[in-house]
Amino acid sequence: MKKRVGEYLMDALSSVGVKKVFGVPGDFNLAFLDDIVSRDDMDWVGNTNELNASYAADGYARLNGISAMVTTFGVGELSAVNGIAGSYAERVPVIAITGAPTTVVEEAGKYVHHSLGEGKFDSYRTMFKEITTAQGYITIENAQMEIPRLINAALTEKRPVHIHLPIDVAQAEIEVVESFKLSEPPKQDVSSYIEMIEQKLQTAQQPVIITGHEINSFKLHAELERFVKQSQIPVAQLSLGKGAFNEESPYYMGIYDGSIAEENIKHYVDNSDAILNIGAKLTDSATAGYSYGFDIDDVVMINHHDFKLNDTVSSEFTLPNLMNGLLNIQYKNENHFPENIRPEKEAYKIDQLPLTQETYFKMMQDFIGLDDIILAEQGTSFFGAYDLNLHKDNTFIGQPLWGSIGYTLPATIGTQMSDEYRRNILLIGDGSLQLTAQDISTMIREDLKPIIFVINNDGYTVERKIHGEHQPYNDIQMWDYKLLPAVFGGKDKVAIHDVETSEDLNEVFMKINKEPNQMHFIEVKMGIADAPEKLDAIGKAFSKQNS
Amino acid sequence: MKKRVGEYLMDALSSVGVKKVFGVPGDFNLAFLDDIVSRDDMDWVGNTNELNASYAADGYARLNGISAMVTTFGVGELSAVNGIAGSYAERVPVIAITGAPTTVVEEAGKYVHHSLGEGKFDSYRTMFKEITTAQGYITIENAQMEIPRLINAALTEKRPVHIHLPIDVAQAEIEVVESFKLSEPPKQDVSSYIEMIEQKLQTAQQPVIITGHEINSFKLHAELERFVKQSQIPVAQLSLGKGAFNEESPYYMGIYDGSIAEENIKHYVDNSDAILNIGAKLTDSATAGYSYGFDIDDVVMINHHDFKLNDTVSSEFTLPNLMNGLLNIQYKNENHFPENIRPEKEAYKIDQLPLTQETYFKMMQDFIGLDDIILAEQGTSFFGAYDLNLHKDNTFIGQPLWGSIGYTLPATIGTQMSDEYRRNILLIGDGSLQLTAQDISTMIREDLKPIIFVINNDGYTVERKIHGEHQPYNDIQMWDYKLLPAVFGGKDKVAIHDVETSEDLNEVFMKINKEPNQMHFIEVKMGIADAPEKLDAIGKAFSKQNS
Repeated sequence: MKKRVGEYLMDALSSVGVKKVFGVPGDFNLAFLDDIVSRDDMDWVGNTNELNASYAADGYARLNGISAMVTTFGVGELSAVNGIAGSYAERVPVIAITGAPTTVVEEAGKYVHHSLGEGKFDSYRTMFKEITTAQGYITIENAQMEIPRLINAALTEKRPVHIHLPIDVAQAEIEVVESFKLSEPPKQDVSSYIEMIEQKLQTAQQPVIITGHEINSFKLHAELERFVKQSQIPVAQLSLGKGAFNEESPYYMGIYDGSIAEENIKHYVDNSDAILNIGAKLTDSATAGYSYGFDIDDVVMINHHDFKLNDTVSSEFTLPNLMNGLLNIQYKNENHFPENIRPEKEAYKIDQLPLTQETYFKMMQDFIGLDDIILAEQGTSFFGAYDLNLHKDNTFIGQPLWGSIGYTLPATIGTQMSDEYRRNILLIGDGSLQLTAQDISTMIREDLKPIIFVINNDGYTVERKIHGEHQPYNDIQMWDYKLLPAVFGGKDKVAIHDVETSEDLNEVFMKINKEPNQMHFIEVKMGIADAPEKLDAIGKAFSKQNS
Repeated sequence: MKKRVGEYLMDALSSVGVKKVFGVPGDFNLAFLDDIVSRDDMDWVGNTNELNASYAADGYARLNGISAMVTTFGVGELSAVNGIAGSYAERVPVIAITGAPTTVVEEAGKYVHHSLGEGKFDSYRTMFKEITTAQGYITIENAQMEIPRLINAALTEKRPVHIHLPIDVAQAEIEVVESFKLSEPPKQDVSSYIEMIEQKLQTAQQPVIITGHEINSFKLHAELERFVKQSQIPVAQLSLGKGAFNEESPYYMGIYDGSIAEENIKHYVDNSDAILNIGAKLTDSATAGYSYGFDIDDVVMINHHDFKLNDTVSSEFTLPNLMNGLLNIQYKNENHFPENIRPEKEAYKIDQLPLTQETYFKMMQDFIGLDDIILAEQGTSFFGAYDLNLHKDNTFIGQPLWGSIGYTLPATIGTQMSDEYRRNILLIGDGSLQLTAQDISTMIREDLKPIIFVINNDGYTVERKIHGEHQPYNDIQMWDYKLLPAVFGGKDKVAIHDVETSEDLNEVFMKINKEPNQMHFIEVKMGIADAPEKLDAIGKAFSKQNS
């Protein structure tokens, strides 16, 4: 069967579940975009710029399991590298496709627009090597080998891949020998390693599990919960990967974030002598500057391509294989451990005083619906939100390892488009919003209905907590945020709200619940120096780390 | 004398003329920013995001001769790579400084935020190698060697350099042995090559000069004009580098853009048998898809590190040395050549009919003041504006080689800040504006007063001309553009205008001239398929090139 290469690529992506393709058109991808917009099983989502597209693709992949984006050569793909690098760091599989000059133009070394003007065409591909798990230059000859290899690599590693697709190749017809099939993930014999873990547990006085983002990347939630039920080992999770473990489970203790964790959780984890670190990374932002109190030698690292128990180290095993292995462990924990205590309802005062960060997040706790998707922007929003108690079916999206401000706004386009029926709540601050604000336009165009809370506290509060509280570089221009939806063509489509007190916020919550089939945009004014307790602490840790 | 390394760097940059530093704060650069904001001879300009900062820095350097920007590690520097690559391609010296984690954190291989989370710290530096002319990792020991080397490299090559500055190094004190001095540019003996050029001219029937962007990068306008006066060889310039030659000179013929050039210029250039290509690049966008009619073997390439005459090829010589050499040539041209005919004043009708692109640019021709800076965005704006006849002291900024849409808006911040007394006119379209719109906020905050004309023609017209005229991927969301200044805090600071007819435009011009001390923002509505003639032609050439 004859297909254009571009068509073959899109068929393959469709077969692994890609239903939306993000990006920005450019003359080196236009003809290829025809092969997207003509499909019934896929939609083209044009973002306002490529960085925003990469964030949207990241958000979509976190929910959908994989995503794709298309940019043009040079100017387009390079605008997306920050987003793609973030997907690499936090293990999110994004297929980054570059529409490139024809092979004829490249072979002739022409001084073509979007090139560096010196007849060299591999500079950008070289750059992508640093931030993607696999890269491929598609030709007519290799298309049926390379495209499957690249998609499989993204799915096996849960990381982005880069596809360089010359526009003449995209349009060329090939005889398709067999349609794309996903490779079976490799089965690995992990039994001897699992035995070592079992032994470690058998001799331990107080085992604990710390879990994190790789569980979300590999979607191993069910397996992890099964292992926990079997072994009855209590679980703490990192802010990096919140959502990895069911917070309604009786084995869930809460968030562990080093020295700033709740006293009883900190005490339990820090005094554990067998710490199963499952799909988690002890980064500075997740541990308040590496302030864990346990002995790092008691940690069993059970991560993707990163196993470590005492002196046994291996980068061979995949996380799914290790996770499956864990299910064979017979150990049963009998220790008592601190229970996760869900916060009381309405543990705040509704009044007309200026709203504080503390009250804001307490009220947010009550507002969250059973299966809402919550996106929390790095800054006051994330450091306030990661202590929220989630329902079993909530999804929580943050980016504390990569930490690129502005990320969550376009990411919300992706998460919302992965399932239009789930409510998306975006928690973001003014400083971050300014980087990527124009993709509110894409939300409106696509008729999405997220709930957007923008904290207006006059600048980069997260930076003020680290250094230069009153320095001018932490100030930003004051915007009339509530005008944004109107600018972007959403005058009659978006409900706008103003919050300065808990009474305001309470009323807004009621209005939102009354009008669920609508995008809501809420400006929340709070004090310039007010911040969630956790942010104050992390700010100090980062400041110390930088001196 | 003791100085902090950061201070030493800023002293060096100040001594070469950097008075504004663009960028975005982040925790790995905050302490270093203290050494900027505390100076009397420098201002910190916080942009809304790093890509915008890189464009602003590019604009500033094009006028000022050099610029600097500061971002944070990973998320910040990677957001700027598209802008930096553009500066590389079009030869604009930007010092791109990354505030990075401390050397202690790096040496320990810590899983720090903004890293890829694997203890590896050189990934981004590796990426910058592809798009900068020199790179350096600053230490306490090498600061006084590396910083001069890097600044000199940027100025010698007129290209960006990357400085990786760990935040502990920035704050460390060093004993400064001698303050930064600019290196003398190397003197090269080019006489034998110049003789060859002279011989070529002596035997030629019809010599011509094609010039372009490197003259702007190296600021060799005076030298070029002197050579032209001496030799009396007529000059055509490329759109890539418009402004390289004084358009009021009697030796100026006009723009040469291959097959679509004005008939008499095309005829003269295509029939020339000695084409001195001085600081110019025959790119696809500058030549309507390489549609030059002359014999490429008759071209003498006199570019920076790119000399070619018949079989003699050298990458050794700098453009300033070659330019100086040309001044020794004794040849005098005696041919007649087509004169540049300046367009008649008021060669259009003022009426209430819908404004066309043709009339728009004809009217713009009359509007341009004697020393205005004109920025023309890639798209209808550039392809309409590059045929404008400039006054001697105008500056024209476009980006036809790199061609990154959205570039000119933040670039205007840079050009305007290089000299607050010159009027800046930004010509941009809706599709491009959407990528970088939020930096209007930076203009307002910095109290800049450019004149911004936004063509609203409902989408990516430049792409429609290449492929997919009616395809949905070339549509954009309709914004209420005139609300933008108000959103960004400029409600009472910016005059807003609406143009749909030539009568409207005429009135707006008068209002602008009456209120020069004010930012003006003009929405110009024009037909979706209407485009400057040149864009139609280039669109066809690009479409052909991509098939």
